[in-house]
Amino acid sequence: MTEKDEPLDHSPQHDSQHDDDHLHEECGVFGIFGAPEAAPLTALGLHALQHRGQESCGIVSWDGAQFHAHRALGHVGENFGDDSAKIVGQLKGHAAIGHNRYATTGATNLRNVQPLFADFEFGGMALCHNGNLTNAIDLRDSLVRQGCLFQSTSDTETIIHLVARSPQQTVLDRVIDAMQKIVGAYSLVCLTRDALIGIRDPHGVRPLVLGKVGDAHILTSESCALDIIGADFVRDIEPGEVVMITSDGVQSLKPFAAKPSRFCIFEYIYFARPDSVMEGKSVYNARKEIGAVLAKESHVEADVVVPVPDSGVPAAIGYAAAAGVPFDLGIIRNHYVGRTFIEPTDHVRHLGVKLKHNANTAQLKGKRVVLVDDSIVRGTTSTKIVEMVRQAGAKEVHMRIASPPTTHSCFYGVDTPQREKLLAARMSVEEMAELIGVDSLAFISHDGLYKAVGEAARDNDKPQYCDACFTGDYPISLIDQNDGSNVRQLSLLAEAS
Amino acid sequence: MTEKDEPLDHSPQHDSQHDDDHLHEECGVFGIFGAPEAAPLTALGLHALQHRGQESCGIVSWDGAQFHAHRALGHVGENFGDDSAKIVGQLKGHAAIGHNRYATTGATNLRNVQPLFADFEFGGMALCHNGNLTNAIDLRDSLVRQGCLFQSTSDTETIIHLVARSPQQTVLDRVIDAMQKIVGAYSLVCLTRDALIGIRDPHGVRPLVLGKVGDAHILTSESCALDIIGADFVRDIEPGEVVMITSDGVQSLKPFAAKPSRFCIFEYIYFARPDSVMEGKSVYNARKEIGAVLAKESHVEADVVVPVPDSGVPAAIGYAAAAGVPFDLGIIRNHYVGRTFIEPTDHVRHLGVKLKHNANTAQLKGKRVVLVDDSIVRGTTSTKIVEMVRQAGAKEVHMRIASPPTTHSCFYGVDTPQREKLLAARMSVEEMAELIGVDSLAFISHDGLYKAVGEAARDNDKPQYCDACFTGDYPISLIDQNDGSNVRQLSLLAEAS
Amino acid sequence: MTEKDEPLDHSPQHDSQHDDDHLHEECGVFGIFGAPEAAPLTALGLHALQHRGQESCGIVSWDGAQFHAHRALGHVGENFGDDSAKIVGQLKGHAAIGHNRYATTGATNLRNVQPLFADFEFGGMALCHNGNLTNAIDLRDSLVRQGCLFQSTSDTETIIHLVARSPQQTVLDRVIDAMQKIVGAYSLVCLTRDALIGIRDPHGVRPLVLGKVGDAHILTSESCALDIIGADFVRDIEPGEVVMITSDGVQSLKPFAAKPSRFCIFEYIYFARPDSVMEGKSVYNARKEIGAVLAKESHVEADVVVPVPDSGVPAAIGYAAAAGVPFDLGIIRNHYVGRTFIEPTDHVRHLGVKLKHNANTAQLKGKRVVLVDDSIVRGTTSTKIVEMVRQAGAKEVHMRIASPPTTHSCFYGVDTPQREKLLAARMSVEEMAELIGVDSLAFISHDGLYKAVGEAARDNDKPQYCDACFTGDYPISLIDQNDGSNVRQLSLLAEAS
Amino acid sequence: MTEKDEPLDHSPQHDSQHDDDHLHEECGVFGIFGAPEAAPLTALGLHALQHRGQESCGIVSWDGAQFHAHRALGHVGENFGDDSAKIVGQLKGHAAIGHNRYATTGATNLRNVQPLFADFEFGGMALCHNGNLTNAIDLRDSLVRQGCLFQSTSDTETIIHLVARSPQQTVLDRVIDAMQKIVGAYSLVCLTRDALIGIRDPHGVRPLVLGKVGDAHILTSESCALDIIGADFVRDIEPGEVVMITSDGVQSLKPFAAKPSRFCIFEYIYFARPDSVMEGKSVYNARKEIGAVLAKESHVEADVVVPVPDSGVPAAIGYAAAAGVPFDLGIIRNHYVGRTFIEPTDHVRHLGVKLKHNANTAQLKGKRVVLVDDSIVRGTTSTKIVEMVRQAGAKEVHMRIASPPTTHSCFYGVDTPQREKLLAARMSVEEMAELIGVDSLAFISHDGLYKAVGEAARDNDKPQYCDACFTGDYPISLIDQNDGSNVRQLSLLAEAS
Repeated sequence: MTEKDEPLDHSPQHDSQHDDDHLHEECGVFGIFGAPEAAPLTALGLHALQHRGQESCGIVSWDGAQFHAHRALGHVGENFGDDSAKIVGQLKGHAAIGHNRYATTGATNLRNVQPLFADFEFGGMALCHNGNLTNAIDLRDSLVRQGCLFQSTSDTETIIHLVARSPQQTVLDRVIDAMQKIVGAYSLVCLTRDALIGIRDPHGVRPLVLGKVGDAHILTSESCALDIIGADFVRDIEPGEVVMITSDGVQSLKPFAAKPSRFCIFEYIYFARPDSVMEGKSVYNARKEIGAVLAKESHVEADVVVPVPDSGVPAAIGYAAAAGVPFDLGIIRNHYVGRTFIEPTDHVRHLGVKLKHNANTAQLKGKRVVLVDDSIVRGTTSTKIVEMVRQAGAKEVHMRIASPPTTHSCFYGVDTPQREKLLAARMSVEEMAELIGVDSLAFISHDGLYKAVGEAARDNDKPQYCDACFTGDYPISLIDQNDGSNVRQLSLLAEAS
Repeated sequence: MTEKDEPLDHSPQHDSQHDDDHLHEECGVFGIFGAPEAAPLTALGLHALQHRGQESCGIVSWDGAQFHAHRALGHVGENFGDDSAKIVGQLKGHAAIGHNRYATTGATNLRNVQPLFADFEFGGMALCHNGNLTNAIDLRDSLVRQGCLFQSTSDTETIIHLVARSPQQTVLDRVIDAMQKIVGAYSLVCLTRDALIGIRDPHGVRPLVLGKVGDAHILTSESCALDIIGADFVRDIEPGEVVMITSDGVQSLKPFAAKPSRFCIFEYIYFARPDSVMEGKSVYNARKEIGAVLAKESHVEADVVVPVPDSGVPAAIGYAAAAGVPFDLGIIRNHYVGRTFIEPTDHVRHLGVKLKHNANTAQLKGKRVVLVDDSIVRGTTSTKIVEMVRQAGAKEVHMRIASPPTTHSCFYGVDTPQREKLLAARMSVEEMAELIGVDSLAFISHDGLYKAVGEAARDNDKPQYCDACFTGDYPISLIDQNDGSNVRQLSLLAEAS
Repeated sequence: MTEKDEPLDHSPQHDSQHDDDHLHEECGVFGIFGAPEAAPLTALGLHALQHRGQESCGIVSWDGAQFHAHRALGHVGENFGDDSAKIVGQLKGHAAIGHNRYATTGATNLRNVQPLFADFEFGGMALCHNGNLTNAIDLRDSLVRQGCLFQSTSDTETIIHLVARSPQQTVLDRVIDAMQKIVGAYSLVCLTRDALIGIRDPHGVRPLVLGKVGDAHILTSESCALDIIGADFVRDIEPGEVVMITSDGVQSLKPFAAKPSRFCIFEYIYFARPDSVMEGKSVYNARKEIGAVLAKESHVEADVVVPVPDSGVPAAIGYAAAAGVPFDLGIIRNHYVGRTFIEPTDHVRHLGVKLKHNANTAQLKGKRVVLVDDSIVRGTTSTKIVEMVRQAGAKEVHMRIASPPTTHSCFYGVDTPQREKLLAARMSVEEMAELIGVDSLAFISHDGLYKAVGEAARDNDKPQYCDACFTGDYPISLIDQNDGSNVRQLSLLAEAS
Repeated sequence: MTEKDEPLDHSPQHDSQHDDDHLHEECGVFGIFGAPEAAPLTALGLHALQHRGQESCGIVSWDGAQFHAHRALGHVGENFGDDSAKIVGQLKGHAAIGHNRYATTGATNLRNVQPLFADFEFGGMALCHNGNLTNAIDLRDSLVRQGCLFQSTSDTETIIHLVARSPQQTVLDRVIDAMQKIVGAYSLVCLTRDALIGIRDPHGVRPLVLGKVGDAHILTSESCALDIIGADFVRDIEPGEVVMITSDGVQSLKPFAAKPSRFCIFEYIYFARPDSVMEGKSVYNARKEIGAVLAKESHVEADVVVPVPDSGVPAAIGYAAAAGVPFDLGIIRNHYVGRTFIEPTDHVRHLGVKLKHNANTAQLKGKRVVLVDDSIVRGTTSTKIVEMVRQAGAKEVHMRIASPPTTHSCFYGVDTPQREKLLAARMSVEEMAELIGVDSLAFISHDGLYKAVGEAARDNDKPQYCDACFTGDYPISLIDQNDGSNVRQLSLLAEAS
């Protein structure tokens, strides 16, 4: 009797459509206040954050009299680049926010592209966030019963209705009032007629940094988005902190009950760009250090250390240096590939098409090879890569992974397969080694990982990071998950196209 | 201090962008329940109603499990014709509603294209209407203060929020509850998971008819939309009547306080298609009869009766027959023209470009010509036509108009210029004749018009029709108009494109 | 062993894809020299000639340094109207030629859209024509054997190669040299860097007129294309005449052997716009006169004369006046229809969809109806129309046709079905009447037709017009037709799209 | 008095529009004969060759009865990937050829997108090539004087006309006859109804290899295009060799006068993909070896070796290993960038936008940095990179270049700036070092380069490679260049769009 058409899209149960067998950050955010060309700068910031979300992007600007928006499926360069100069030119104003989104594709989801915008009694406001609200469906059901009309399946819309119905007077108080009802891991930015507001969840799971260029202030997910426009890094926004940036400057509040910091450790392993600095640490250095720890923890005799490009490169450099084994690009990646090129037919597939990676045979033939990759999710890519390396004539293949086994799904804004599809949830390391076809397989240990990022070890009583994907230790309660069977399904239109 | 970007689009104050100097019906509706291919049939129905709205069109269907929609700017044939077979194929189901809209163009208004759809607590519902709600802004302001979020400037959205907040239990009761708060002239159709609902306002200003084809029932604006699919005309829906069509058949209710019938008399003059039958009368015959009355009321010696094509043709035939003067096509209309062809530059304009009409010189040269047109709005087209006829060598030009002088704006769903742009609001008939450049000018009298549609005369105490555009006698109160200065402006996004 | 993909498109053997069961003119041409905005004026001229070709259109202009072109599938208004202001703006210069084409659709034929352009030793030249060359394939085969590379299936390209290979020195001499090798019915216009050249074939089968606006001269197919830009009609170009328009004025030559004039009589019956004047006669008056002759030749008692809209209207007016029977629009045509709206499925088709015409029941019920149409080609439309009129309650239906029976295909630039699909080639008038379902059927006689256009009768020894479609008397030899079996097929690319 | 609109596009005089300050290969070719899905395999091969040409791509297939084509601007993945499945599906047949092109963009150049196709007396043939013909304009002028009509500015079209006019009988003889008139550096592939033909110019400047997968044979520019579809490398086509692949197998001919082999040495430095094997050498190993030679030739004390990504990476790895200095990614490249993202305005540019590269500050701060790049063309990118590295806190910056100074333009199919824009043509190494802002700058020596690719040294009397860009020693005569002033300009249409 349901009329379901669209799963609420923040659950991890849908299959990733991506062939590269990685977990994926779902979003990147950027906001700027006080700059003469806020929207072009936001476009550049989003471009620097493209790795955090490639399915869609959007910008909303405010020019003092009118909000302007452009939101579209596709990359930032496609939608806000040279060919879109006219569109960028229409996004006038000194303040803007923008968002990259990583989510299931399809025309019906254009309505989910952020930033969302609404016309409130107090005027218009746009908002977007990186992360996931874990009680959004629960709240939505209650709001629908009160006569609220929802336009999307995005959890962000729940925030908008809470703001609209808040009895508070000021915009800031209404937003805080709404967020006090919300449970989840998020970094949120809002643009009103007077202010840019940023909020990081009480555990600080997702990143958010403050920057400055000229007189303008910036809130964004990573420091590399500051670098691209020549802005200075000021500081990380603290867990549970609310900042309001107006023409009077930056105001900081701590309206939420304090919680222990649990920054996402996977940002260091894979999500963040290597040239970003997060919570005071260089991501590149963290990865090299992980490689070095890995070399010590799981030594093997070898002739060459080969990264699985590109994400395995820093760890492989660290591994090679620590192990004293030459580093070489034994696998060449075709950077033109894109997600849009599929293997056309069974016949063609049979030939063993190598769309994205090719063996650099001269570096592999007759050698004992250490392959370094950042993580194993389903194991499909690893299997193909190992087969390719063996076909190129490698004598031995040893795989070293720069993270512990990924055994649990993430519910905090990362695109992960269902738990039963995670290889490490189903198999021992030995079983995985056999499946993948390597002579040996090793993952970094939990403590090794914490050491690499500067801790003595993992504090199992009060873990310093969110590492739920490796441990199942979820710091924020999963209300919608626990409640899943009772969830009211949405009746959304299927737009023909 | 406002952040206005978009006028609420049901007010008559915006200028018509149309060159043909006519009033325009703003909408046509079509709904069908119980037919195997509801959407293709709806597309055909909308195609027959294309004259009631050319800017945009939309269809929503229900397939028993899912609502499907396609809404777009442009004509029905462009969006649901041969080239869109794939789209029409996606609009599955045995029930559908559709809408043609006549309104200002522009990308920002795509969100106003009907039918609107919402996900209610009771499930999804789509709705659309022909007409105008005269207290929609007033209601909207109150709803926004209660935390409602509006997505469009369409008055239809006000109905949706009223339905969402209704305390009633059944869908039908909620819709009726909502409409009891609404004031206006409208013919509304709604599609739910179980039913097609139709409502005509208590005065019955706008048309709505019931038809049948096989086992399926149809609600639509004009009988010509029944003819196109071979359906039978059953009856006009009565003023204030609510019909609910389900798999159990047609149920009729009269939940509103009874009001005197005031059908729009302009439907006979110009809006409706000549092959439609409205309130029991053939529109073509009504027009011929108007021509005949006009010939009697304002006789003139002449050699030829020439219609301004195409709308003046039936009245001209009636005039010619009654006057005993030959009827001829002295003006040829280029049917390829379309609204999209403008005169490129001042230089070109200077040449006296005749995009839409050309004089048929052989029928005009040296003759005393009676030109018959349906109405004069601004007078711009009339002036050009008369000049063209004179240049072709007409000896005398007498203009006869098949309606009384248009002196007032319509607020009931017709696109009219502001009152001060109506020629007849500013000038006497003599002044108009001089401006237009004719030897004589005559309009049909009020009583003559009522006679032509079968009444003895206009009953000035209880007029049988709505003729506010000729008399200023508005049967439904103009709440938003009277209240205009206090209206809260919307803050809607300007979508860059 | 052939590698055929595309029939040479000037043969009549392919089926018309058009539902309206008429013969169709294949082209209209327009050229202007000496006007500041040559391209916009050409666009307007083509718009006035839209009835002569709706599949594609194109304009080439010359700005003194560069030729500019835009050629596309679709109507003039779609490609050169308001929405294409940027494109029209790029077509700079004081001279331009343009073309409307009526031909089979499909992406592979974009290369056939005229005007064609080529870079010759003497510089660039664009050309286009209305009509058909009857020895183009024969010439093409010979050119291919000499190493010529053909890009299209258009017969116009044959002319281009002949010009490129001509040993003559001047452009004009080369063009004349080429046309002396050509056999066919054509009106050709060419644009060079210095001149606009026009040529009408020796029999003058297709029309071409000279006009003037300000200092600019115009060559075009019909006078209505002069009217639209306020230009004056100067004269018809004579059969076999070559005119060269330069900044020095108009030069006239008669380089071909003189032949008797055989203007296409079907231009009066159907092809031309009623407001055009051709060879000194008003097309509208010719049609009315045909109706009048028809009324005398085939009288019948009746209550109403109803035209099949729109082409039957002038003849019906003439018939009604001559017969003393009222004229009424008993069939209403939906002008929004367009070719793009097909009947979606068998189920829907079964309902008897009336996309284009609807019965105006009030004018037909219980009446003896004379239906007037211009011609019968296959008879399919007539059958549907008669059925619709009978369903509306007509007591008797008598059909009167404003042309003699169409018994032969045209090879001179008119889209006609294969002869065996022409109803009148297969059946007697009585058989046709039975098939179509009328109480009586009559065509105008050959002599009656000649009388209506001002002749005493048809001169059977030296017919005054080309009437091959009614008589099989072909004035120009059909070289490719007679030679068909030996024709080399082209190997053209199928462009994927 | 000219009517020029388009420079002949194979001259090096036009400015490269590309910001990355590299020379660029102009094309890649791929042909396959005997495979069930020839076009999808060709698309994959072109994808592997994307680095050889990114502006446009095209495929022509032959299905035994019909040639099919799709040619478009943009990348292979955009035009033949997942979103274009329908198009790829239309390219039927067991044989196909394809082409990537690197050339100036713009709609007017779509006609230059290869493969070209023509309908000859013997049937259709498609062809495409990598390289440049140095007497194409000279030949074209002569052909135009003989009445040939050219459609494009591509030098490939000259070949087509020579084939059409050849007096030889067989297709192979005609193609060889045509190529005997051609001077230039080229690797050509042709597809006829029976055969795939490949020709490498007598000096073998551009690469062409033969591969095999199942029963199908392949001709392509690089071995990486074999790897992607799992095909085996068979051998390099020899300089001056003609191969004809039919259902009877591979036939080899040597119809041209023998010339010394002069393979392009820049293929090893930059053009080819590192995983390709050319003339028996691994490209990756050649680059590492260049880095090693460079480390020996121009030693400097340093803390870190940093490649300019991505092209400097293999040489930097070789340099670091030979010098015993750590290798690190001190510069991070944003692979999402694409050419389409420009710096929006002066204001934004002022901020020092880093679209493509960002400093990895943690690896640079306080360090003595050796930057390794493959070449310096204009020096613009080098200057920016050095400035960025210094801003990140590097103590010293030493630049090492993996090629000799680029002092001359290439006329053999490589996109190069005019000679006066080449930095090394205007400045000494010391002047360049100052301009770029480095503490030291060194290029590999000519002999060092030859050593790295396996020679004892450069044989100055009979150089083993074409190294004209470093030496000005052009092995093939530059006929059109020497003749430039007399060249007839084309009069091509400017297509409005």
